[in-house]
Amino acid sequence: MNGAEHLVETLADQGVEICFANPGTSEMHFLSALENPRIKPVLCLFEGVATGAADGWYRMKDAPAATLLHLGPGLSNGLANIHNARRASSGMVNVVGEHSASHLKYDAPLTSDIEGLARPLSHWVRRIDGPDAVASDVAAGVAKANEHPGRIATLILPGDASWRDAGEIVRLPKPGRTMRAPDPARVEQVAKVLRSGEPTLIILANKATRGNALALAGQVAGRTGTRIGSQFFTARMERGAGRTPLERIPYSVKPALAFLAPFKHLVTVETTEPVAFFSYPDLPSQLKAPGTQVHALAEADEDSEAALAMLLDLLGPADGAALIQQRVETPVPSGALTPVAIAHALAAAIPENAIVVDESLTTGRETMGHTMGALPHDLINNMGGSIGYSPPVATGAALACPDRRTICMTGDGSAMYTIQALWTQAREQLPVTTIIFANNQYAILKAEFSNMGAGPAPGPRAMSMIDLTEPTIDWQAMAKSMGVPAVAVDTAEDFHRLLVASIRSEGPMLIEVRL
Amino acid sequence: MNGAEHLVETLADQGVEICFANPGTSEMHFLSALENPRIKPVLCLFEGVATGAADGWYRMKDAPAATLLHLGPGLSNGLANIHNARRASSGMVNVVGEHSASHLKYDAPLTSDIEGLARPLSHWVRRIDGPDAVASDVAAGVAKANEHPGRIATLILPGDASWRDAGEIVRLPKPGRTMRAPDPARVEQVAKVLRSGEPTLIILANKATRGNALALAGQVAGRTGTRIGSQFFTARMERGAGRTPLERIPYSVKPALAFLAPFKHLVTVETTEPVAFFSYPDLPSQLKAPGTQVHALAEADEDSEAALAMLLDLLGPADGAALIQQRVETPVPSGALTPVAIAHALAAAIPENAIVVDESLTTGRETMGHTMGALPHDLINNMGGSIGYSPPVATGAALACPDRRTICMTGDGSAMYTIQALWTQAREQLPVTTIIFANNQYAILKAEFSNMGAGPAPGPRAMSMIDLTEPTIDWQAMAKSMGVPAVAVDTAEDFHRLLVASIRSEGPMLIEVRL
Repeated sequence: MNGAEHLVETLADQGVEICFANPGTSEMHFLSALENPRIKPVLCLFEGVATGAADGWYRMKDAPAATLLHLGPGLSNGLANIHNARRASSGMVNVVGEHSASHLKYDAPLTSDIEGLARPLSHWVRRIDGPDAVASDVAAGVAKANEHPGRIATLILPGDASWRDAGEIVRLPKPGRTMRAPDPARVEQVAKVLRSGEPTLIILANKATRGNALALAGQVAGRTGTRIGSQFFTARMERGAGRTPLERIPYSVKPALAFLAPFKHLVTVETTEPVAFFSYPDLPSQLKAPGTQVHALAEADEDSEAALAMLLDLLGPADGAALIQQRVETPVPSGALTPVAIAHALAAAIPENAIVVDESLTTGRETMGHTMGALPHDLINNMGGSIGYSPPVATGAALACPDRRTICMTGDGSAMYTIQALWTQAREQLPVTTIIFANNQYAILKAEFSNMGAGPAPGPRAMSMIDLTEPTIDWQAMAKSMGVPAVAVDTAEDFHRLLVASIRSEGPMLIEVRL
Repeated sequence: MNGAEHLVETLADQGVEICFANPGTSEMHFLSALENPRIKPVLCLFEGVATGAADGWYRMKDAPAATLLHLGPGLSNGLANIHNARRASSGMVNVVGEHSASHLKYDAPLTSDIEGLARPLSHWVRRIDGPDAVASDVAAGVAKANEHPGRIATLILPGDASWRDAGEIVRLPKPGRTMRAPDPARVEQVAKVLRSGEPTLIILANKATRGNALALAGQVAGRTGTRIGSQFFTARMERGAGRTPLERIPYSVKPALAFLAPFKHLVTVETTEPVAFFSYPDLPSQLKAPGTQVHALAEADEDSEAALAMLLDLLGPADGAALIQQRVETPVPSGALTPVAIAHALAAAIPENAIVVDESLTTGRETMGHTMGALPHDLINNMGGSIGYSPPVATGAALACPDRRTICMTGDGSAMYTIQALWTQAREQLPVTTIIFANNQYAILKAEFSNMGAGPAPGPRAMSMIDLTEPTIDWQAMAKSMGVPAVAVDTAEDFHRLLVASIRSEGPMLIEVRL
């Protein structure tokens, strides 16, 4: 076997099932090795789609995907969604093709400092020295990606390490994932806080917003009356009827300050105290009230489920039922496509077990609470703030869960960043409904202009940098160009009707919501 | 004035005329400052379009544009075309918005190591410390970008440096561009080589492939009988009837070796000896024949026009006419869209003073020689090898030269990387004809698979990573989605006819060449 064959075999041995790829000349042996049926290769027409899809895969599988990127520029194109994945604690293994070692000194056109480009957003970077090192380096990279929280591992694969003979492969064991045990003293401290009866908010994140950890948090809330919530953005949350509901800390600074003002204590679970997304001239960065104490029940690398179980033990027998979201039957809305009507249509249409990828920004920011009582679903947010995360993440999530419907809600400005994802959705016939909120502007910036104190309203030239008209984007043509069926809607009832139709259909569909 | 106003004023004072922008919340004051009519803001719907457009602007203007990018991820999205610009010796000034200094310690979602991301592909990186530093830092950045060869300058602009009062602006002088004088000893050495009569190729690049430098090289060739050529890729070449013709070193390694085998001497002008683009298992990286000597007439930062003038002086009075390309009237081709027929159609259609941006890859690689005798035009190539350079570069070139037609030739795979450029072309109504060579595959990789020794031909899974069918891209729908009129052609005569029609039209057009 050559190095590339070792690479693919070892990825598979270590549990990697899929590779989101955009190959180039230096990766031809890797491509050849992908004939190995143990790994599914998925072609993405831009690297930001590949890395975003790897993020989406991880969010649903809790297991890293691989990406195949072409030298420094290919990695660069993937970095923004690597940033988002990193902030979402998603593990991934990036394989970056590189010139063979002997070619580097000639500074050929595609040469760049790949380590330098990789390091700022990777937790682990390694250049594979030669074919003999492939298997062990790949295993180390996957192990890194598999840590809790998930990590970004970047392997640099020189052409000669790929094409030279690597001999017999050494099959390396696949280690399990270890989580740091919670600190009993900190759990005890949180129990004391909850027993005090002082106003407290428990803020859950990452693995604590789903499964047994979330249910345990609901029991803590039921037992103590403490409130439980989440940051505004959460990597993946199990949500809807029958699940433990979490209060969402608002995005905007002033409402967030008001929301957090009553609490004497914030208890953090796999997260840190809430801070403003951006800094504003006359507003604080820290959102908690002065004097509020912050207690970490579980840090990012700790076992939060264990911590919540320990906490429940300390709190003693239940004297209240667990907090559970009731099903809310939302009537189908009609008329104008207001944010509330859109949220109502979603609430009425979301099917059981859907995956909702939310990059709705302005349109959905204030109204997603209306979908709390929908059928149980998973909700995924953008953790890194780099727009263009949702079409790729939806692509990866749908590949991870082909039997579930993925609903991708995105602003038009965001969608344009990584719109090439539609092509992969069409090729793989993925069950993704992409909803474009077409307000023909970076609407969020129009509001932020005055929030920032840049003036009462944008002038004509600033406005031309925010406005997406002249020309407006024809979303049906865009979807058609990449093989995705599309419709446009002007009313809430049509939105609901076509959303339901898309959910019942097979394969991808795009709905332009004309705002 | 606040810091952002200082920034825009100083950019203008230093000669920057245009800013390719994709702003975010942290850049609202910069946006407001762009009301200043001295700088034209151009909205790009993805940062790779902004940096590529800045590259195109520089290639035609020999003066840097500014870009406005949103924090680390916005910069990351622009890096691949920054890599291409860097390799093209294009100067640019990237302004990267950043959290205000006081906000950084909270590690908000969009926080990243911007310096770390900027350094591998920037020649100069500076974080603006505060509003007082804006004017001097901006002037230093523009001066860096203005060096010969052009440089990548990246300024990091924290929100507070932008919004805080910066007081009276200090108007800084705009320094001229200095070039290092050629080394007389090296020029003398080259004169000796040329006088020897031994087979010699002079390889011209960057500023030496146009204007007086190119004409002087033609005189050297006429006087001495030496051959003159270029690398396969050139940043900008003045070309066509009446210009000095340059022989192009082939792209593929074996033809390049054969082409260079006869030469005892290579004389380099603003470039270095030719090397293979990629490394292959059984082929050398260096393309010159063993024993061939390399002589630098002018290094990258030297004044090559002066060097060629000195050389001519040393060679003494002319005994041959300057080498001049004759006009070749190419008949309009008909029938199948072969690479040669495509080149003939181009040769017949290219209007005087056109700007041809070539990313045709497989389709145009072997046949661009057929356009040598077309009407005089500028030819621009991808210097960094990261695909997706041409629609953005064409956008910037057309803004730099609104009275000339820009013809952007691109493979379908490449075009998908930065297709958002079409929207900016529509908004600005730029005279750009985009020609998509739609072979529905990464055709170059199909050839490279066996060149690389990865096997005789790609297997089904490897092939699925090279093939762009299922679905094929509907280029007319794609263009329509972003407001660009489009046609598709199946014959050489239709290609020629619609190419001519697009050249006579106003505004952008896309022609899908169905291969």
